[in-house]
Amino acid sequence: MNIVEIINKKRVGEELNKEELVFAFNGYLNGGVKDYQMSSLLMAICINGMSDKETFDLVDIFIKSGDVLDLSMIPGIKIDKHSTGGVGDKVTLIIGPIVASLGVPVPKMSGRGLGHTGGTIDKLESIKGFNVNLTEEEFINQIKNIGFAVTSQTKNLCPMDKVIYALRDVTGTVASIPLIATSIMSKKIAGGADKILLDVKVGDGALMKTMEDAEKLADIMERIGKYYGKDVECEITDMNTPLGDNIGNALEVIEAMDILKGKEGSLRDLCVKVSTEMVSMAKGISVEEANKEVLETLHNGNAYNKFLEFVKAQGGDITSLKVSDKTIDVKSDKEGTITRIKALACGMLSVTLGAGRMSKEDDIDHSVGIVLKKHIGDHVNVGDTLCTLYVNKDIEINPNDYFEIS
Amino acid sequence: MNIVEIINKKRVGEELNKEELVFAFNGYLNGGVKDYQMSSLLMAICINGMSDKETFDLVDIFIKSGDVLDLSMIPGIKIDKHSTGGVGDKVTLIIGPIVASLGVPVPKMSGRGLGHTGGTIDKLESIKGFNVNLTEEEFINQIKNIGFAVTSQTKNLCPMDKVIYALRDVTGTVASIPLIATSIMSKKIAGGADKILLDVKVGDGALMKTMEDAEKLADIMERIGKYYGKDVECEITDMNTPLGDNIGNALEVIEAMDILKGKEGSLRDLCVKVSTEMVSMAKGISVEEANKEVLETLHNGNAYNKFLEFVKAQGGDITSLKVSDKTIDVKSDKEGTITRIKALACGMLSVTLGAGRMSKEDDIDHSVGIVLKKHIGDHVNVGDTLCTLYVNKDIEINPNDYFEIS
Repeated sequence: MNIVEIINKKRVGEELNKEELVFAFNGYLNGGVKDYQMSSLLMAICINGMSDKETFDLVDIFIKSGDVLDLSMIPGIKIDKHSTGGVGDKVTLIIGPIVASLGVPVPKMSGRGLGHTGGTIDKLESIKGFNVNLTEEEFINQIKNIGFAVTSQTKNLCPMDKVIYALRDVTGTVASIPLIATSIMSKKIAGGADKILLDVKVGDGALMKTMEDAEKLADIMERIGKYYGKDVECEITDMNTPLGDNIGNALEVIEAMDILKGKEGSLRDLCVKVSTEMVSMAKGISVEEANKEVLETLHNGNAYNKFLEFVKAQGGDITSLKVSDKTIDVKSDKEGTITRIKALACGMLSVTLGAGRMSKEDDIDHSVGIVLKKHIGDHVNVGDTLCTLYVNKDIEINPNDYFEIS
Repeated sequence: MNIVEIINKKRVGEELNKEELVFAFNGYLNGGVKDYQMSSLLMAICINGMSDKETFDLVDIFIKSGDVLDLSMIPGIKIDKHSTGGVGDKVTLIIGPIVASLGVPVPKMSGRGLGHTGGTIDKLESIKGFNVNLTEEEFINQIKNIGFAVTSQTKNLCPMDKVIYALRDVTGTVASIPLIATSIMSKKIAGGADKILLDVKVGDGALMKTMEDAEKLADIMERIGKYYGKDVECEITDMNTPLGDNIGNALEVIEAMDILKGKEGSLRDLCVKVSTEMVSMAKGISVEEANKEVLETLHNGNAYNKFLEFVKAQGGDITSLKVSDKTIDVKSDKEGTITRIKALACGMLSVTLGAGRMSKEDDIDHSVGIVLKKHIGDHVNVGDTLCTLYVNKDIEINPNDYFEIS
């Protein structure tokens, strides 16, 4: 076998067999296949696609490149939830405590943000002392003890995904549905949960820009899950508008706590919906029963207390959360009704403020971000504050790049 | 500008503008763009193609990456001939002397062989002392003095082509008509000839496997030539069958000399046709007149003498030509008529014998190769010799892998 022949086969749109995929990908991990060869193959995959068989095979190769977490010593049905990422997406920080407070274990491995999308690990690091690098033992023990833990992907879980993702990121080969599905599902399966709820975001602030693509991604991820005997359910949710009001690391932790303490709105509605789904899947009860339990645990403070317990268990000092003292109110220069808040633009603005990174090596500022003060459908007058920026540097922005008012 | 954005644009099939192509390709030559990014872009170009405008722009970038040869001090219309390569293709060694002996200067830069196709430089190196690395001054002086010179591509002629070709070779991105056209035409234009005759090979032993692709390549090369004010003509010739009888370096030089000395056959017919075309283009005379001149110079020995003059001018000792003493006759195991001699298989066999290289670093053995003893249409009996192998190692082959007899 020869890597150039394998690349040529994919270039002309032929299906690669398992041996060829193993040769190419394991070869890359071991150094026999060069990065310039793998990137060429990845581009051919991006443009020509992969069959279901190729995708299932590739997931297997990714999983077997490292360890598979054994969560069997944790009693009960373990359920994982994954969002494909967006702007202001702090859902994990809300639904984890809700579901865990109802006795369903939630083992959660998360990533860092890149580009306009944030990452749960970065958000948690805005809490002083919070340990995002649990050992496998610490991770399992915490889930056994309090039902919820969040850790960075452990070093030896899908190492293939790490090297391939890093290469895709710099070679224009991110936008491939089978490669995205492989990346997500291999980690989820290696993560050891019994059931997986996938939240596929669609819209200008998401990786999937169209409903058609989001459906394709959801479909192949469900089929990968089925192939591996995992109960997988997919939701497709909107990411044309930022999720909730706050964008930026500490600001998002604060908003998550506000929701757990009872704040209303579309973000809370989404979290209730997702939590209900998870509880229903894990407990095998009806959606109605699950929904009742979720509303109850929010109402009686158990979910919020679970959040505090979780932060403390991972060494975090919740009183340390800090947002920048310096704020800028962005005011409307016209009168009318807000018809759109652009998620992608808001995500990029938060990167500019320092809340996100454009390349993996960038440092981020946990104290900066955006708080939306108006919502779609709100009527605004000239001079009304549309959003407040928490900043550590001077910046001037045009509100019309972020809000459509007519 | 950002290389990932440029790659993404090409991935989705959009046209790149000149600035983007300059950023990507000059960036690669300068080291700012990495090889794994360039290979990804090249694969996107392979699959999604390039527009005429992109191709013209890329040719310009390739030309400007190095020097352009100034042949203006050589009197007369300088004509270059280029073949896209095949098996047994020693045409340059025949038509160069023919055309130069008729007073038309032929400045020829050539390459080495790779894979199943041979290269003129390798063939000439089977002559002891032959200098394939002329300086620009030596090259020009020799053309002024005797009308014909062959040299390796000079170091600073299209350096972009060298690095891009080397990368394409190992990343499965060779088979792109616009990239092949760019590679050929940038070198031809930078080579400084006034008129260019292109011989596009088509068939299983050629880069272009189908007539449709060969016509596409010929078409874009003619248009590139026109864009740069060069008179370009294309011929499409068959490469399903090896050219002539001999394959292998010294063996091909010997066959070229045989043709110049009067040997008949389809290779001679092709060389007369190509030479006629070149003389007609260069002198602005009719094909009939040019054909008469070509036949005359072959007949009266001037073309053969020009060949000897050319070898001597470049320091070669023609008496040094040596083929291996060890030969193997490949005999037919059936009776019938030869319907096909497979060019690609013969080319690969010559590589196996040591006459060619699979990677750029391989050494080659100039003394080995294949001499075909039978031709398409010949009737053969069991035990008849189909071809003779000149070898330096033991080898056993199945004649039916190379000859179709029915």
